[in-house]
Amino acid sequence: MRPSDYSAIPTPARCYVDFCILPLGTGNTSVAQEVAEVQKLLKASGVAHTMHSAGTTVEGSWDEVMKVIGQAHAVVHQTGCARVQSSMRAGTRTDKPQTAEEKVKRVEEILAKEEES
Amino acid sequence: MRPSDYSAIPTPARCYVDFCILPLGTGNTSVAQEVAEVQKLLKASGVAHTMHSAGTTVEGSWDEVMKVIGQAHAVVHQTGCARVQSSMRAGTRTDKPQTAEEKVKRVEEILAKEEES
Amino acid sequence: MRPSDYSAIPTPARCYVDFCILPLGTGNTSVAQEVAEVQKLLKASGVAHTMHSAGTTVEGSWDEVMKVIGQAHAVVHQTGCARVQSSMRAGTRTDKPQTAEEKVKRVEEILAKEEES
Amino acid sequence: MRPSDYSAIPTPARCYVDFCILPLGTGNTSVAQEVAEVQKLLKASGVAHTMHSAGTTVEGSWDEVMKVIGQAHAVVHQTGCARVQSSMRAGTRTDKPQTAEEKVKRVEEILAKEEES
Repeated sequence: MRPSDYSAIPTPARCYVDFCILPLGTGNTSVAQEVAEVQKLLKASGVAHTMHSAGTTVEGSWDEVMKVIGQAHAVVHQTGCARVQSSMRAGTRTDKPQTAEEKVKRVEEILAKEEES
Repeated sequence: MRPSDYSAIPTPARCYVDFCILPLGTGNTSVAQEVAEVQKLLKASGVAHTMHSAGTTVEGSWDEVMKVIGQAHAVVHQTGCARVQSSMRAGTRTDKPQTAEEKVKRVEEILAKEEES
Repeated sequence: MRPSDYSAIPTPARCYVDFCILPLGTGNTSVAQEVAEVQKLLKASGVAHTMHSAGTTVEGSWDEVMKVIGQAHAVVHQTGCARVQSSMRAGTRTDKPQTAEEKVKRVEEILAKEEES
Repeated sequence: MRPSDYSAIPTPARCYVDFCILPLGTGNTSVAQEVAEVQKLLKASGVAHTMHSAGTTVEGSWDEVMKVIGQAHAVVHQTGCARVQSSMRAGTRTDKPQTAEEKVKRVEEILAKEEES
């Protein structure tokens, strides 16, 4: 490919990203307030999301998911925190659509079937 | 500290680790079978654990949690997979014990209180 | 904030993201060919980036960095891989700009100063 | 497998783990001092390691690598920090040994060969 061809490559139409966001330098070991602010942003954004104890999973197009996670950094900065770090796991697939819920169900089915036999 | 002093540093007595394990080179895009094998290992190990759509959170001492995640790599290799990769988030704190469940509850309380007011 | 206010929050003007991208279901344990394709994309994109043995660090605005990582997923899909997973660490700060190179230098200075004394 | 069989599964004899460690609640956005403490620990431990701008890659047996990363959490707690979080990428393979250095070299060879042709 020529360099000019690269800029035209589209980002994935669908992805899921699990992220955990951390404020640094706050003088407070609790991050619950910052996480709550991010949950309000996610709710307002309209993207599908599920919180668990080690992060939040967001589903949608690559661009909308990454926009809202970037905004999450901004929201945590707005609480007065000068440094924000996040850890993410992003998955994309072209073979079939699969929701976060279906992924868990699939594993549970395998386990249930083995217990039966 | 002298080098000899470092080897005596104890690993944390308590931690939580959220991990996502991936088999590489399997010729199969589904990872559900491998994840199910890991869930059986976790159940047999007796460590506290919760599966979600983007990983599993394990709680216990650093040594027991890391032993079982290392065994999880071994279990996936045993399914015939020559390369295994995992992504982890590990947290330790010395100020207070806090379970995975309490972390989620704390955020939900903040959100509920704000909605009331 | 009202929901309408959230959509106007800008993503960070500057960030660094370290990412590791993995093709799943390829039937091949080596990922070097896919990583090489991603390096060509990064070079063509013009964003600052440094490869190391466990990933690549990219620096720029949130939007341009996330666009190119999304394109990296697309490029790996184009090699014939139906499922792509990546792990990322993203950092943003509002107190001062700091390049990846400066971060390493800062740690090395502390270590050098302590060895002297 | 019976539960008793699981406890006998050995952890991997060889792995590489790339980790990034973060102190929370310090009231200071810089983490260079804590990272320098961890580098001293790694040096004293004798495990193979390489620092880059977004983390440090450690190589060795699963048990020795995870012991030293657990000790790294302890060392950061000793600096007075009550909460420590790390993000890790762990890789194991049974097909062939491969060092961190060889992984980078392999990608560079592919890129060099393509530029020639």
